[in-house]
Amino acid sequence: MKLVIKITGKFFDMEGDKSSLLSSIKELIGLGHRVALVTGGGGIARRYIDLGRTLGLNEASLDLLGIWVSRLNALLMAMAMQDLAYPKVPESLEQFMEFWAHGKVTVTGGFQPGQSTAAVSALVAEAISADYLLIITTVDGVYSADPKRNPNAKLLPKVTTLELKNILESSQSVRAGTYELLDPMAMKIIERSKIKVMVMGLSKIGSIDRILKGEETATIVEPV
Amino acid sequence: MKLVIKITGKFFDMEGDKSSLLSSIKELIGLGHRVALVTGGGGIARRYIDLGRTLGLNEASLDLLGIWVSRLNALLMAMAMQDLAYPKVPESLEQFMEFWAHGKVTVTGGFQPGQSTAAVSALVAEAISADYLLIITTVDGVYSADPKRNPNAKLLPKVTTLELKNILESSQSVRAGTYELLDPMAMKIIERSKIKVMVMGLSKIGSIDRILKGEETATIVEPV
Amino acid sequence: MKLVIKITGKFFDMEGDKSSLLSSIKELIGLGHRVALVTGGGGIARRYIDLGRTLGLNEASLDLLGIWVSRLNALLMAMAMQDLAYPKVPESLEQFMEFWAHGKVTVTGGFQPGQSTAAVSALVAEAISADYLLIITTVDGVYSADPKRNPNAKLLPKVTTLELKNILESSQSVRAGTYELLDPMAMKIIERSKIKVMVMGLSKIGSIDRILKGEETATIVEPV
Amino acid sequence: MKLVIKITGKFFDMEGDKSSLLSSIKELIGLGHRVALVTGGGGIARRYIDLGRTLGLNEASLDLLGIWVSRLNALLMAMAMQDLAYPKVPESLEQFMEFWAHGKVTVTGGFQPGQSTAAVSALVAEAISADYLLIITTVDGVYSADPKRNPNAKLLPKVTTLELKNILESSQSVRAGTYELLDPMAMKIIERSKIKVMVMGLSKIGSIDRILKGEETATIVEPV
Amino acid sequence: MKLVIKITGKFFDMEGDKSSLLSSIKELIGLGHRVALVTGGGGIARRYIDLGRTLGLNEASLDLLGIWVSRLNALLMAMAMQDLAYPKVPESLEQFMEFWAHGKVTVTGGFQPGQSTAAVSALVAEAISADYLLIITTVDGVYSADPKRNPNAKLLPKVTTLELKNILESSQSVRAGTYELLDPMAMKIIERSKIKVMVMGLSKIGSIDRILKGEETATIVEPV
Amino acid sequence: MKLVIKITGKFFDMEGDKSSLLSSIKELIGLGHRVALVTGGGGIARRYIDLGRTLGLNEASLDLLGIWVSRLNALLMAMAMQDLAYPKVPESLEQFMEFWAHGKVTVTGGFQPGQSTAAVSALVAEAISADYLLIITTVDGVYSADPKRNPNAKLLPKVTTLELKNILESSQSVRAGTYELLDPMAMKIIERSKIKVMVMGLSKIGSIDRILKGEETATIVEPV
Repeated sequence: MKLVIKITGKFFDMEGDKSSLLSSIKELIGLGHRVALVTGGGGIARRYIDLGRTLGLNEASLDLLGIWVSRLNALLMAMAMQDLAYPKVPESLEQFMEFWAHGKVTVTGGFQPGQSTAAVSALVAEAISADYLLIITTVDGVYSADPKRNPNAKLLPKVTTLELKNILESSQSVRAGTYELLDPMAMKIIERSKIKVMVMGLSKIGSIDRILKGEETATIVEPV
Repeated sequence: MKLVIKITGKFFDMEGDKSSLLSSIKELIGLGHRVALVTGGGGIARRYIDLGRTLGLNEASLDLLGIWVSRLNALLMAMAMQDLAYPKVPESLEQFMEFWAHGKVTVTGGFQPGQSTAAVSALVAEAISADYLLIITTVDGVYSADPKRNPNAKLLPKVTTLELKNILESSQSVRAGTYELLDPMAMKIIERSKIKVMVMGLSKIGSIDRILKGEETATIVEPV
Repeated sequence: MKLVIKITGKFFDMEGDKSSLLSSIKELIGLGHRVALVTGGGGIARRYIDLGRTLGLNEASLDLLGIWVSRLNALLMAMAMQDLAYPKVPESLEQFMEFWAHGKVTVTGGFQPGQSTAAVSALVAEAISADYLLIITTVDGVYSADPKRNPNAKLLPKVTTLELKNILESSQSVRAGTYELLDPMAMKIIERSKIKVMVMGLSKIGSIDRILKGEETATIVEPV
Repeated sequence: MKLVIKITGKFFDMEGDKSSLLSSIKELIGLGHRVALVTGGGGIARRYIDLGRTLGLNEASLDLLGIWVSRLNALLMAMAMQDLAYPKVPESLEQFMEFWAHGKVTVTGGFQPGQSTAAVSALVAEAISADYLLIITTVDGVYSADPKRNPNAKLLPKVTTLELKNILESSQSVRAGTYELLDPMAMKIIERSKIKVMVMGLSKIGSIDRILKGEETATIVEPV
Repeated sequence: MKLVIKITGKFFDMEGDKSSLLSSIKELIGLGHRVALVTGGGGIARRYIDLGRTLGLNEASLDLLGIWVSRLNALLMAMAMQDLAYPKVPESLEQFMEFWAHGKVTVTGGFQPGQSTAAVSALVAEAISADYLLIITTVDGVYSADPKRNPNAKLLPKVTTLELKNILESSQSVRAGTYELLDPMAMKIIERSKIKVMVMGLSKIGSIDRILKGEETATIVEPV
Repeated sequence: MKLVIKITGKFFDMEGDKSSLLSSIKELIGLGHRVALVTGGGGIARRYIDLGRTLGLNEASLDLLGIWVSRLNALLMAMAMQDLAYPKVPESLEQFMEFWAHGKVTVTGGFQPGQSTAAVSALVAEAISADYLLIITTVDGVYSADPKRNPNAKLLPKVTTLELKNILESSQSVRAGTYELLDPMAMKIIERSKIKVMVMGLSKIGSIDRILKGEETATIVEPV
């Protein structure tokens, strides 16, 4: 299978072992899957964006700083995978396609201002006709509401893209940026190409089959 | 002033003289303005997209074909402006910024799959802190409804971004792609950076001052 | 065998199915051949060249417009071949060699102003030491005269490069551009490296063995 | 004058206003000087290097991570200078020379593994035949010993390159990395091209004339 | 005026002062002309081509070696001109146009296998609409025959492109490569764009006006 | 094994057969080793550096000329190896890593001014975690003194990096440039990554096993 794995930038902020992601991906490759990894920017991105804002940078430039940090995270992962990964981080979808053609894991951060890395992961999934786009979050799936705010929020094992859009919009209306899984551009790409999406915690990367059978906690997004 | 001019791809389909755009831009430069030009793909883009679809290309690849045609239109205009324009067409916002730094007209087509050239023009306007983004259409502004369908549609001299979003959404709900001025990504950029937008016919490019005074027909979009 | 296939730009103008070329190339690959494909610009190229001429572009710039259209045709074919082809179109022979090294079909349009795509195909054939350069035309080989003008024109199953040069020169003297198979630069490359050339109709791509045995209609060009 | 300013990566770690550097450089430009700025990586670079080490990266790859962070710092400063700076960060001396030719401030981080950003600043100073290389540190010049360790360390207003090498070597023998102003490669470049160097605190950037007269505290390095 | 100066690669082989070319070009710039310089490969190119041939390289690869040497000569001249020249050597006409846009002397060697540097100089002259293409040879113009072989060979102050083609063809028929001023591709470009050409010795670079008046020995090629 | 072979630029000056290096490398590949080849500049490099010096170039520019010649030598070898080698010469370590990822011999010359090609070979060995770095010289190993000056100089079968540094420093103190095997930057990389180095004559390339057993004359450098 062709898998796109989108890992939150927060992963690079967190204390603790980063090698779990590495070994999960190696395991997937060992099983014969092809993997594209998309890394977010996380706290270091926000730090540079804040610094840039104090220096008067415009929004496009601030986005670019965040993109560079996500590319730095991508470079870290690409180098850690050694011969398994293409050693350069693509800076556009065209470049991604070129690197991907070489048969290795391709690790990418952001592409362009105005796009989230979630949108990048959807574009990448579309371009390679991925079997699944796995969105790795700090929680273990999509909740009916923001679990940090609402103790009654429940994990949803299955949602349609339409339901997901409603959840995202309502939570975004509360406070921008606090619960951002998939932005409108990512959703548009997912919908137009009916990309199969799973939202899950990091420890579930290797359990796609079990998730599909409902034996592991995660959220399957069904294109409508 | 720094002006971004977005010209519809249909301009390159139409019979008749293309040199009017050239002379308008030269006039603006003569007045001391700096100009970035963004060209759409138009009918040739659609032709290649249709051809690609018969060959089984995915949506990202189809977008890329359309982007290439918009870049071809950009190259045509850049070469026609000779020494006034940078002779290469940028393929990303980062490259645009580099070319723009050389002080000439920079002509660009599309950047990335999943983005319209309208979104490109908004990104460019944001990145250079443009004074105005001029959207050149085949009609002379934003109408209360699609003028081709509704004889009662009226040209609106001023709309807020909020009103424009409502108009665009309602018209899009009728039939996708038939009345596409500004897509959601373009609107998001315009809103977050409060970019001043004017929608106008080609003949009005040189009349920004008169439009601002209400002496020429066009639509001014006011950021809210 | 290593095969360079040069397909006329007219192929992209013609109504009807483009997938025959795709399936022919896939078949060749399935037989263990390596294929480089060179695409011409065709009618869209001429359209942009005409448009450029009305805007006062010089000959080098007009050539460049035509080259870009031939690259667009190359991109279309490369994307249609999916994993079989390198996903990027080379813009110089050096870049071609780099892409070719990756073991996939490499699809290229024009390289430089002043060169036809026929010359490009000869350069490519020389650089990879191709076994055959297949020139695909809208007719089924080289005729003793332009078959559209002269009803007595006969298809020639074999010509020497010297004979071919005489035919090309005499037909070109009638009206430039109307019967342009191989320009002088292409002929020079073919001669200096004694490249084996076949001129044939599209339907004969898969029949190299049969053509060599004289069982299929086409023209074999013998280097002298 | 042509000035190369090397700013320690620690500058980007420190709390407090980053705009002082911006305004100092703008002032220098206002006085008619041309400026190249070289930024170090600092604490974020060390953070990524540490992270990379836990993932088993080799030294060349770790260097590359640090270089990327120094480039990120360079991008931040380049964007903050807006039209005064070239908007792209060079990744080699050849690219630096190209960007520098455009007449703007050129901001660069590291170039290659195995080279410090101090060596980069010396190379840049050599390549543009700079009048002075200003090394900005967190202290206000070169001390006879590490001032953090030795309360008797005295600031030296003038040292020869030979004396400086002795100081650097003796302090490095204590503990690698704790007092690294200029590494051997930087010293080699400075010596072979007799580059004039000043070591100073950030607040002294604008006082070159006063330093030369001995009216401001800093260290002048005299090539022997 | 816009001038393209093509200097034979032999210039880089010859003993003696290379700075005369530099000072001539500086003088032309001082007079307000814009200059593009095209350098041949000369003896070092032939040396590498010979070496490559012993290693079994094909013709395209041998051409490429020669092109690299011509680029090396171009780099030498570009660096010697310091701030007057763009510091990078273009590798294609598209890149040449980009570098040329920056207002400096652009120095280029070869572009593509199958093209001489004479053809490059004609392409460059066409692309920038040069006023004159100056071909600098080791003799002082075009002779009625090869002056090294025929003591009766006379310098021709004026030739038409048609006459020049006849001279070149007849001399080439004697022995290929011994008297190669302008190859067929160069002639084709010169003819299609009616480029004004002068063939002259190095010492005459600064005497265009005097040559036009017939006061200096050189050959003016008149397009027919 | 992964082997980096550094061949002195003098190899390209010497009369006689260059194909021995080719066949040695092919033999190594046949045995299942992966090879990176680093070529020096040699006499042609010195010739261009001398020429540049007469034209007033600075040290960085002179280094760049030498680097270009080393790249030309690299290109020659890459093209001679045909399908076994990547057909492009990397210009930085990042680019080297990218080309290396494609599984072929990667041939590189110099990277950056201020670095010898010996330093490049050490960087490359570090970056790919090479098993051995083979330094091919015109003599057959490291001698206790310069064998051309001192008839008592003895070949040392084993030296530590510390001993080697002492030998290099003492010989360099006699006359710079006359006995330059490994410069300080190369030594630094070798030490920090404990790279295993062998210094040997060209004819010994294929005898690594025998050298390790002490059955062939060469010098093994042991990291301390």
